[in-house]
Amino acid sequence: MRGGSETRAVVLLSGGLDSATVLALALADGRAVHALSFRYGQRHQHEIEAAGRVAARQGVAEHVVVDIDLRVFGGSALTDDSLAVPHGRSAGEMGQGIPVTYVPARNTIFLSYALALAEVRGAGEIHLGVNAVDYSGYPDCRPAFVEAFERLANLATRAGVEGAGLRVVAPLMHLGKADIIRQGLALGVDYGLTHSCYDPAADGAACGRCDACQLRLAGFAAAGIADPAPYAP
Amino acid sequence: MRGGSETRAVVLLSGGLDSATVLALALADGRAVHALSFRYGQRHQHEIEAAGRVAARQGVAEHVVVDIDLRVFGGSALTDDSLAVPHGRSAGEMGQGIPVTYVPARNTIFLSYALALAEVRGAGEIHLGVNAVDYSGYPDCRPAFVEAFERLANLATRAGVEGAGLRVVAPLMHLGKADIIRQGLALGVDYGLTHSCYDPAADGAACGRCDACQLRLAGFAAAGIADPAPYAP
Repeated sequence: MRGGSETRAVVLLSGGLDSATVLALALADGRAVHALSFRYGQRHQHEIEAAGRVAARQGVAEHVVVDIDLRVFGGSALTDDSLAVPHGRSAGEMGQGIPVTYVPARNTIFLSYALALAEVRGAGEIHLGVNAVDYSGYPDCRPAFVEAFERLANLATRAGVEGAGLRVVAPLMHLGKADIIRQGLALGVDYGLTHSCYDPAADGAACGRCDACQLRLAGFAAAGIADPAPYAP
Repeated sequence: MRGGSETRAVVLLSGGLDSATVLALALADGRAVHALSFRYGQRHQHEIEAAGRVAARQGVAEHVVVDIDLRVFGGSALTDDSLAVPHGRSAGEMGQGIPVTYVPARNTIFLSYALALAEVRGAGEIHLGVNAVDYSGYPDCRPAFVEAFERLANLATRAGVEGAGLRVVAPLMHLGKADIIRQGLALGVDYGLTHSCYDPAADGAACGRCDACQLRLAGFAAAGIADPAPYAP
């Protein structure tokens, strides 16, 4: 065990593959977990249902869902209906620049709410599933961003000013998708409950062609395992 | 003029005295202002109406109001109906520790939304009215916090990664309330439109007794000017 049995942690839980793995790691380390999810006007509302399934299956102290409206700002294909989600891009295309599916300041906003929840619940840690390998095109998924948020968190709160301080933990930062999947499977994560697709069918089945599906399927292929999640025919 | 006439700035506008002054300073410096206000479950909804009046009178390019629900976290007298707003405290009492009216991670959350708006609108600056003199009890009103957010902002966004960078401007940081009022009056701010009270009457009249009213009234007294805002009899 890396931590004591009494440590509370806020875990950002999107319902996707990465955050389900982060949750399993936090629980394996003996954390009491306050899971936090967001409804943020995203097209993929199925993610929220997946987050609820994952939280219930793995066992958390609490699952808080916060409604936030990022649509007021526009600017991303994930929240703006006038922009198309790209399909069938090659790995080379995905690697160029910041993708259109980037949501402005999303991780900053999510971490800010996590900080509020951590402060109110007395949690000393915030865990999140950012990943510099697969998401190198997103500025707010890099180690320097996570470190800067931890520094901010310790200046922003009672815990930082008066107490024991706050850690921001990103255990997947340097892992590829296949390694993430292998770690999760070793901890018993049921990836059939998770949802990654940016552009799912009405019944929640994944499209298999957007960037998120392609990365996920490539990860399962590299791990030599079939993805148990449902895909559209 | 400190800046060019084309610089866009996001100004956090609460409807209070401080942010009305920050807006006037930004406009005097030639900024095109995108004002940003929040409905966050606060008892003092009159602040939002005041923000609208101030934005309209001073003239902004845009006034965005975002609904966010901090009540889900509880923990502050400003958002939790089970906690009482303190009345009639002395300056010495106000100066001790972090007040119960502190909202967990509030300025971090507000700045995160400001960052999203700045990115989408191409604004290179975020202005806010935090003040280390009057609000020394709030951890997220100190210079180190503002500097840490600026650092984070430049790691979190396209502007930081690919562009000209982002400044976080806190022009009132080292000013007392009387100096803020004098600056605003010199720029023509109508403080009769602003609202500071934590516990107003149903018609919006200020109570005159909560911490915010006491600080405001002391500032006007020190500046030798009558407060033009309405107070309950």
